[in-house]
Amino acid sequence: MTVRELIEKNRSYRRFRQSETISEEILLELVDLARISSNGRNRQLLRFAISNGDRNDVIFKALPVWKGQIKEWPGPAEGEKPAAYILILSDEADGKPHPADAGIAAQSILLGAVEKGYNGCMFASISREELAKELKLPETLKIALIVGLGKAGETVILEDLAAGDNNVDYYLDAEDRHHVPKRSMKDVLYRFS
Amino acid sequence: MTVRELIEKNRSYRRFRQSETISEEILLELVDLARISSNGRNRQLLRFAISNGDRNDVIFKALPVWKGQIKEWPGPAEGEKPAAYILILSDEADGKPHPADAGIAAQSILLGAVEKGYNGCMFASISREELAKELKLPETLKIALIVGLGKAGETVILEDLAAGDNNVDYYLDAEDRHHVPKRSMKDVLYRFS
Repeated sequence: MTVRELIEKNRSYRRFRQSETISEEILLELVDLARISSNGRNRQLLRFAISNGDRNDVIFKALPVWKGQIKEWPGPAEGEKPAAYILILSDEADGKPHPADAGIAAQSILLGAVEKGYNGCMFASISREELAKELKLPETLKIALIVGLGKAGETVILEDLAAGDNNVDYYLDAEDRHHVPKRSMKDVLYRFS
Repeated sequence: MTVRELIEKNRSYRRFRQSETISEEILLELVDLARISSNGRNRQLLRFAISNGDRNDVIFKALPVWKGQIKEWPGPAEGEKPAAYILILSDEADGKPHPADAGIAAQSILLGAVEKGYNGCMFASISREELAKELKLPETLKIALIVGLGKAGETVILEDLAAGDNNVDYYLDAEDRHHVPKRSMKDVLYRFS
């Protein structure tokens, strides 16, 4: 796949075929992509944790964003949830990573997942304190982002807005397909004056 | 190329063959990869600006990091600088983008550049206020990250550290090759207790 195809296919999926699991080997390969990715000054302050079923329920509960993001949609039902999660953690014992680092790592993980036939979603809205406590994380390890992974259980359609159209809200159509409107090139390109 | 090959080749290059320019068409294709990438709640608050020669000097001067990052290296000489830059800006008129958004966008741009035979480097250490003034950016547009692009003019070697080895500093070897040590998988993988 080209990089463009990978990015086009890397939509934020919210419904998965939960019974289709991911091997630990593949999850570790995805972590390895994040491990070798660029990061601020190469300090490598991110750490990664995998939940492959064992801690899925507690992680799912810490992601309130599932519910609010699409109007009148209560979030994925049992059977539609991610099969696995990769937690992107920052080890703040020696200072904080650059905030962009977690985004770089998440993008590496997700593009790798798409290539392997999986799909995912990154989460930044997390009940961080409760989850850290539940997972018994050490004090210095902070939750930066969480990536949910699985086989997509819904259709996501990327669509271009007309120039000047600011209606970027997601919506579900009559056939339950998830639409993701993207601003036009004209609207995101700043031309120096 | 596989995603792994793309990420392995996507090193942070600091010396380029400056005379090898990049077409505006390619730069716009790279911006388009960032445009369609995932971002926090799909709000799409990032904007992108291109400098393809015209504003390179003023941007280069705003990147003090060139000089300090490798011991006893003064930064790229004339002829070794990036051929072009993509500025990742956040439009803060309607709120701030998630800090991870700029990292996601930068990774999309850089993996796209690698696929097209170019190389790059992302910069977070930027003299933001001076540069915004020089570039006459509107008040609401803030500089998040800058990506320098061109044809690599140096060899970068990715190497794995042994478990427990924290010596992540870059270094140049006797043949002027740039080494990038990466922490071992054991050191970045957190196992729940």
